[in-house]
Amino acid sequence: MIPRYARPEMVAIWEPRTRFRIWFEIEAYACEAMAEIGIIPKESAKAIWEKAKDVEFDVERIDEIEKITKHDVIAFLTHLAEFIGADARFVHQGMTSSDVLDTCLAVQLSRASDLLLADLDGLLAALKRRAFEHKMTPTIGRSHGIHAEPVTFGLKLAQAYAEFSRARERLVYARKEIATCAISGAVGTFANIDPRVETYVAQKLGLAVEPVSTQVIPRDRHAMFFATLGVIASSMERLAVEVRHLQRTEVLEAEEYFSEGQKGSSAMPHKRNPVLSENVTGLARLVRGMAVPAMENVALWHERDISHSSVERMIGPDATITLDFALVRLTGLIDKLLIYPANMQKNLDRLGGLVHSQRVLLALTQKGISREDAYAYVQRNAMPVWRGEGEFLPLLKADADIAKVLSPAELEELFDLGYHFKNVDVIFDRVFGES
Amino acid sequence: MIPRYARPEMVAIWEPRTRFRIWFEIEAYACEAMAEIGIIPKESAKAIWEKAKDVEFDVERIDEIEKITKHDVIAFLTHLAEFIGADARFVHQGMTSSDVLDTCLAVQLSRASDLLLADLDGLLAALKRRAFEHKMTPTIGRSHGIHAEPVTFGLKLAQAYAEFSRARERLVYARKEIATCAISGAVGTFANIDPRVETYVAQKLGLAVEPVSTQVIPRDRHAMFFATLGVIASSMERLAVEVRHLQRTEVLEAEEYFSEGQKGSSAMPHKRNPVLSENVTGLARLVRGMAVPAMENVALWHERDISHSSVERMIGPDATITLDFALVRLTGLIDKLLIYPANMQKNLDRLGGLVHSQRVLLALTQKGISREDAYAYVQRNAMPVWRGEGEFLPLLKADADIAKVLSPAELEELFDLGYHFKNVDVIFDRVFGES
Amino acid sequence: MIPRYARPEMVAIWEPRTRFRIWFEIEAYACEAMAEIGIIPKESAKAIWEKAKDVEFDVERIDEIEKITKHDVIAFLTHLAEFIGADARFVHQGMTSSDVLDTCLAVQLSRASDLLLADLDGLLAALKRRAFEHKMTPTIGRSHGIHAEPVTFGLKLAQAYAEFSRARERLVYARKEIATCAISGAVGTFANIDPRVETYVAQKLGLAVEPVSTQVIPRDRHAMFFATLGVIASSMERLAVEVRHLQRTEVLEAEEYFSEGQKGSSAMPHKRNPVLSENVTGLARLVRGMAVPAMENVALWHERDISHSSVERMIGPDATITLDFALVRLTGLIDKLLIYPANMQKNLDRLGGLVHSQRVLLALTQKGISREDAYAYVQRNAMPVWRGEGEFLPLLKADADIAKVLSPAELEELFDLGYHFKNVDVIFDRVFGES
Amino acid sequence: MIPRYARPEMVAIWEPRTRFRIWFEIEAYACEAMAEIGIIPKESAKAIWEKAKDVEFDVERIDEIEKITKHDVIAFLTHLAEFIGADARFVHQGMTSSDVLDTCLAVQLSRASDLLLADLDGLLAALKRRAFEHKMTPTIGRSHGIHAEPVTFGLKLAQAYAEFSRARERLVYARKEIATCAISGAVGTFANIDPRVETYVAQKLGLAVEPVSTQVIPRDRHAMFFATLGVIASSMERLAVEVRHLQRTEVLEAEEYFSEGQKGSSAMPHKRNPVLSENVTGLARLVRGMAVPAMENVALWHERDISHSSVERMIGPDATITLDFALVRLTGLIDKLLIYPANMQKNLDRLGGLVHSQRVLLALTQKGISREDAYAYVQRNAMPVWRGEGEFLPLLKADADIAKVLSPAELEELFDLGYHFKNVDVIFDRVFGES
Repeated sequence: MIPRYARPEMVAIWEPRTRFRIWFEIEAYACEAMAEIGIIPKESAKAIWEKAKDVEFDVERIDEIEKITKHDVIAFLTHLAEFIGADARFVHQGMTSSDVLDTCLAVQLSRASDLLLADLDGLLAALKRRAFEHKMTPTIGRSHGIHAEPVTFGLKLAQAYAEFSRARERLVYARKEIATCAISGAVGTFANIDPRVETYVAQKLGLAVEPVSTQVIPRDRHAMFFATLGVIASSMERLAVEVRHLQRTEVLEAEEYFSEGQKGSSAMPHKRNPVLSENVTGLARLVRGMAVPAMENVALWHERDISHSSVERMIGPDATITLDFALVRLTGLIDKLLIYPANMQKNLDRLGGLVHSQRVLLALTQKGISREDAYAYVQRNAMPVWRGEGEFLPLLKADADIAKVLSPAELEELFDLGYHFKNVDVIFDRVFGES
Repeated sequence: MIPRYARPEMVAIWEPRTRFRIWFEIEAYACEAMAEIGIIPKESAKAIWEKAKDVEFDVERIDEIEKITKHDVIAFLTHLAEFIGADARFVHQGMTSSDVLDTCLAVQLSRASDLLLADLDGLLAALKRRAFEHKMTPTIGRSHGIHAEPVTFGLKLAQAYAEFSRARERLVYARKEIATCAISGAVGTFANIDPRVETYVAQKLGLAVEPVSTQVIPRDRHAMFFATLGVIASSMERLAVEVRHLQRTEVLEAEEYFSEGQKGSSAMPHKRNPVLSENVTGLARLVRGMAVPAMENVALWHERDISHSSVERMIGPDATITLDFALVRLTGLIDKLLIYPANMQKNLDRLGGLVHSQRVLLALTQKGISREDAYAYVQRNAMPVWRGEGEFLPLLKADADIAKVLSPAELEELFDLGYHFKNVDVIFDRVFGES
Repeated sequence: MIPRYARPEMVAIWEPRTRFRIWFEIEAYACEAMAEIGIIPKESAKAIWEKAKDVEFDVERIDEIEKITKHDVIAFLTHLAEFIGADARFVHQGMTSSDVLDTCLAVQLSRASDLLLADLDGLLAALKRRAFEHKMTPTIGRSHGIHAEPVTFGLKLAQAYAEFSRARERLVYARKEIATCAISGAVGTFANIDPRVETYVAQKLGLAVEPVSTQVIPRDRHAMFFATLGVIASSMERLAVEVRHLQRTEVLEAEEYFSEGQKGSSAMPHKRNPVLSENVTGLARLVRGMAVPAMENVALWHERDISHSSVERMIGPDATITLDFALVRLTGLIDKLLIYPANMQKNLDRLGGLVHSQRVLLALTQKGISREDAYAYVQRNAMPVWRGEGEFLPLLKADADIAKVLSPAELEELFDLGYHFKNVDVIFDRVFGES
Repeated sequence: MIPRYARPEMVAIWEPRTRFRIWFEIEAYACEAMAEIGIIPKESAKAIWEKAKDVEFDVERIDEIEKITKHDVIAFLTHLAEFIGADARFVHQGMTSSDVLDTCLAVQLSRASDLLLADLDGLLAALKRRAFEHKMTPTIGRSHGIHAEPVTFGLKLAQAYAEFSRARERLVYARKEIATCAISGAVGTFANIDPRVETYVAQKLGLAVEPVSTQVIPRDRHAMFFATLGVIASSMERLAVEVRHLQRTEVLEAEEYFSEGQKGSSAMPHKRNPVLSENVTGLARLVRGMAVPAMENVALWHERDISHSSVERMIGPDATITLDFALVRLTGLIDKLLIYPANMQKNLDRLGGLVHSQRVLLALTQKGISREDAYAYVQRNAMPVWRGEGEFLPLLKADADIAKVLSPAELEELFDLGYHFKNVDVIFDRVFGES
């Protein structure tokens, strides 16, 4: 994580004091459950909550203790005992450190998911607003970077909306994957702890119970989570790359927002760089790259080894903080994107009407002209246009063979963009449930 | 794909003749739909089905035509016209090649998913059977590769079962991701084709309609699919690594099946190598590695570029064929795995009872001994055991301080494995819905 | 590997008969060495060579034997014995299968490297020729996709030349990494074989001796090899992406070669798609993705496990065949690339001279105008140009404040492209050693 | 980067004040060069050095300025001007920000490489010392995790030494790849700056001149660098995994160092977890994962886009800091590794001598026994040993058929470990140049 690409909301989830607070809640809820079952005194469970619930844990003090104990959970429990006193002996009974660590990670990743889901909602809202705004703004569709046939700018954004709706669905699923609680003891057998404690804590923390843990929560869950983030990042890259293409000097159909006063923009008015979308492109690479170590983390040895830990200490915060930042950046970018319909029209027109050649060809064959002849008629008019020696429509009108089957009005009709956009409503209905 | 690691069922899905058959069905169903809507004559649509439905397409002939046309779909359509005759002019009307290619890929990946789901069912069945068989077979649980506390061998397999149940769920979801149909024309606007054609074909092929395509089906779907295969492969690696560990000479708690007559096994009876699980480990790496290019495929330019195509031509078959082969191999491996309960017991016993030290410590403190004293009592008896100078239980019994609070019977009770296994039923119930 | 993306030269290296031939040579050279040392009879060593050197090994027969022996090297040796007769007992003495397999892989990867080096030489030659051809062809330099300052098209190609010179150097180094020979027996101790045999075979096969092998050649060598291929593929992607950008309809500064007769090119003369460079982009992703499993292969257990084998059976051929094909394709693409200097000039001019604004600014400050004033002068003339209301140079000439310090001739001088190209020779000298 | 896995030496390289210091040096050396050439006054160049050379740049002040200028290099130059005064107008003349940023990154990565090279030297020294210490310590060689034939523990370490020697060589090469200087202006044409400035600065900073830059140093260099770190990390994983295997309870041939007083080690004396090597395993995954985004960074658009920047801001520090930390940790681990020759012997003996069966077989055939008979003789004695019903040597001696050709002394000779170790010196000579 680097501050430049981080939002405080997400950073807060990964701060030590948040972690310690969650550890405390896990331990305190576990005590409540044990009291409920009758294993420890109810007053003790209550006292533990009361005495520590408003405490701001002293991160430096815990670090200091850890230097001696060489164990973070023990250091925390030692610090906790300083507040709680005698009842501390009931805390953590029959539990193992991983019960606390893995359940805490589940809480943190769930919260991170909630932020990311909100981010996606913001992006979806921006995409929808701009999609409807430009639902019927004509622009050229491009395959292979080459002009193909007309689309609307709204359709481009509708596709992005549909893609990020899928991203949202995937994240909901990925969140469910990692939102489990394990409090099952040293090797997951509940030898020294009642399974009901786990059920109770899980419910209190809004987690599902991990059906079978082995000291640790199995890491296929986390692999799926980080792989999903990688796929979402890849979709973000796609949208960012689209903006970068549209902002190219020769295309200039859209631009990232530039405040009027922004320095350097007017002596070189063309030199507005799509730096935000380039940045999102790079951040997407980072998040995607983290899927690989997450998958390599799955094959832990026997009941567990601890090789996953260092990986997660880094990619847990890094992947979520980076994705959160990039999503918010991308949302702002879409929200304020400068869109230039006039330039879109100019680009549509730049081939002198050749983008309609396919439709003319079709019309000729429908009028009974053989495919070979139709092709020849279109070709002899297309080539001069391509060489810059005229516009396609007037040339077609002036072609005697064509005139025999297609009237000027019919030819004009073939150049009508409306033909291409007649099903835009159908698509919008599918994507947005409205049009 | 290499034949050595391929099963014919999965290979068949990716063979040219299967592809051509699917292409034909897409075209024929599209004609049916157009006939239904009234765009082309009903008899023509019917004739197209009739004339080609039993045809085995001539792959070599199509290849030959492709050499001239430099376009696979056109080559196929040309070959198809050789059967169909005049009605061929109604085929592919208003469609673009990608409508056929992408929808075909959706069908192929769906069928591949069905095979993989069946594979997973097979693996789950094997795991369940062996899990119940060894539900109460004691074995040592290991964290960090070091003996921790007892578990049962059934619990190990129950964990694998739970993990592959999740894998199955993920694959169901991933299958849904890629099972969509796009028949929307050159840039996805349905300019020359009625959206109802797409709906009809989708329904006939058991696919969902792609809400918004842009000549192509968006590649975030495929990225999610291949990333999911990567996660499943990682779980397979975990199970394979477990077997490899269990088969180590010093551990020997399980072995891959060796037929009695298998060469070379008796002059060096110890030299039975876990080559199948090693092979699965390698195959998992391959499948996992394919997630990266699949994610890089997402950011196509504008409405589409064709950079994804070469990637998918390779990883489409390779990832599914390899995973299918590895799953079936892993299933056979689990199904016939030689399991050695006696060796498990021997390993459990090898530390002279030290695995129970934690429980003795706990019992002493519960009897009112201070943590420091309890620790000292345990330690002075544990160290000789560790040095190989005795068994833990008799030493504890002979310790005067311990004898004051724990009777011989109580100490024996602390060495009872049943204590650790009292919640095995709870876990089995969670995992299998029965115990 | 799929035939569509494969050249026979590279495919041949990976064919079974090539492999068997190399196996034979390893065994035969080893016999020669043993005869030399006096371990086996010289006539036997000679007979082994004589009897099998012209044999085309029967791949199907060996496969058949392998079905029984379940071991590929034993199957081969059995088949070999069918030719050699009694002397066969001297073959493979004291060796282990991996001695043959790993040394054979070294030979295959070395040969593959030689082909790839030749491919790179071809690409370098094409780049050099086109670079000199367009050494002084002006074109706009773009940062962030936005027009920046002029460069020459030759400089773009010189940069690619320099990049692929590095690629070549890296491949020479990577080839050296994997070109080692191991003939050291079951666990690499030379218990049953004289180290001089290894030295002899290595020398005969043009390999270095592996200083310490452990049944296998260590896989960090192969990881480095495949990672290097991944980096080379990434450079290919860069050049392919450049071509794709240049061929965009709005840019059209270059195009992949289209033969006149190529179908479909004249009715839609604009619809020439950069499919070769898109293909190279996809192939690059594939090769890059193979670096990950190759790196995961390094951490074999103890003296060896066999998990690397399945990975290498696939990526060995796939990475080299794909890279070879892509390199040759990229070379042809560069060699025949249609380059449009007139369009480059048109693009250079499209901002009405604004690309020179920076230089005008600098000139004004050098004439003693304060930075603020200079900026204001430039800005007030740049903005109308940007709005399409005039050309930059005449506007500047007409500006009274500017006229005071810069004469029309001086202003014209500032628009001279020669200023930007004065050091092209320096750069060419650095890159090509000539200019 | 997280403090837990970071050493201050490497962290310092990436601190803002280091970066600013390097930026200053680049600018000041560039001024020196320009003064030398006669472009700016010599006194000014001298004054710039004098006034700022001892300045500790105020990071917070620069951050503040950046908030206004939105540009880090301009913010730095503004701050620098506060020290330098009027001569500041000569600083950065004709240069572009990337000249400073990319050259600075080259300096930082070179310094990071130097630290890593020193780390590798430390690791090599530790490996060599321990290798010679245990040059002749017998231990079992294992293939597939199964006992194969004897090796020495020194040989294991010699293999690691050879592997890390290669790692060192690769890093020297990778360092050379990224140690280049670019000071070539906006699009790399030296339009506004003399190429001699670049040569001068390069030489002062110990860098090579970048032959052709395009505002940026080409990113294939960095891709190669990070890929190399990934390969080195993979070798570290191999060694870490070896230690983890050796420390398994059932194997216990080596252990990570535990100080006597380390808590918790004596009540459960067996529970010493190889947490350091597990940690190194995880850190290796992290570094390896960073090779992927580094390779994706290569294909920048045209003369440059800035998508690589965010990636490098993260992986630049993260990869080098993590690798440095892991190398030092691994060195300490090897240096203090507890090695248990007695346990190695015990493991060697645990199969009752069966590891010698191969050699007995060979000896019998050399005595003229047919392969089939020899095999039967060995097998009938091996099986009881495998079943735990005796030791191999006495059984062989008691076998009448064997007794006919092999005397008891000859049989004992076949069980001599010296036979396996006779070439250890040869291997040590190859690896260390001494034995």
